[in-house]
Amino acid sequence: MIKHWRHISTRTLAETPIFTLNAHRRSSQETGRQGDFYVLDAGDWVNVVAVTRDDRIVLVEQYRHGVRRTTLEIPGGMIDASDESPEHAARRELLEETGFASDNWRCIGIVDPNPAIQSNRCHTFLALDSEQVSEPAPDGNEELRLVLEPVSSVRTLAAEGRIEHALVVAALYWWELSADERGSTPVRRSNP
Amino acid sequence: MIKHWRHISTRTLAETPIFTLNAHRRSSQETGRQGDFYVLDAGDWVNVVAVTRDDRIVLVEQYRHGVRRTTLEIPGGMIDASDESPEHAARRELLEETGFASDNWRCIGIVDPNPAIQSNRCHTFLALDSEQVSEPAPDGNEELRLVLEPVSSVRTLAAEGRIEHALVVAALYWWELSADERGSTPVRRSNP
Repeated sequence: MIKHWRHISTRTLAETPIFTLNAHRRSSQETGRQGDFYVLDAGDWVNVVAVTRDDRIVLVEQYRHGVRRTTLEIPGGMIDASDESPEHAARRELLEETGFASDNWRCIGIVDPNPAIQSNRCHTFLALDSEQVSEPAPDGNEELRLVLEPVSSVRTLAAEGRIEHALVVAALYWWELSADERGSTPVRRSNP
Repeated sequence: MIKHWRHISTRTLAETPIFTLNAHRRSSQETGRQGDFYVLDAGDWVNVVAVTRDDRIVLVEQYRHGVRRTTLEIPGGMIDASDESPEHAARRELLEETGFASDNWRCIGIVDPNPAIQSNRCHTFLALDSEQVSEPAPDGNEELRLVLEPVSSVRTLAAEGRIEHALVVAALYWWELSADERGSTPVRRSNP
């Protein structure tokens, strides 16, 4: 059994609008050894697999400043610090980034974006019967392009490296796993 | 078409042994607007789906300082800065963390751990016919416990939230997708 490390102290190294970088000093209950562990402390995130009635998935293309490339992703973002629920954040982000809405929501999985260096979690929602109700209204520095792709092409988009964001790849796997529970796999069901 | 943002300047906010936190100032070619984008600049990572001849997957349990919990993951780590190849890093991490080795390696996918706030990539390898050749020799502050699980249980471990690391969930999806290309799915093949 791996033992919990004892927390000794926290030193804040940097604060940004999306996370705080802390150095946490902790000691091993196994060896007594102490170490500094660098962690991005941040609120939780959400992302959304939104599917239309005609079996298309709602995607966004955007410029990403980490990799300095345009990526293809599912919509998502940060949960507002002001006690917003994960589902509310998912509904809000889908609407803001794409103009789509749905009345058929459920959480299909929760992952640790990176349990080694991040304290937060990412909640993945499935929004069935999604339809466009407004124009996208991205905020701040977001420049987005809406992309609709057939559900049947999703595995190919991942396998061919068009979708490369780990949290999106994980969400697509959750989607398949959640479909298994119901005895069908949407990604495969629509395959020829 | 989403345009590339022009790079103006970089300010280093913090340096840690595993990444440097930079604020990159950039301007939009679309609107002329300027913004600061916070990015963890780091070398690439690797992780490994290692499968034994008797259809078990090689996992490690370890205490993770981001989430302050013990997690169940596939082996992985950082590529050494000294020009180490991704495959060499994958072989080294598998051996160090678990004592397992394989002569049957291939890269099954590459993801962006987080294209918004990280510049690096994670290379996922499949190591078939893996066998234990030594004792695990984790370095520094790593306290690991080796866990072997039947390949047939992998989907359940993810679906039930025993495996929660996004990069591991993404790797498991790559594994399924890579199997599709060959006309078989190892995860499902072993299911009853």
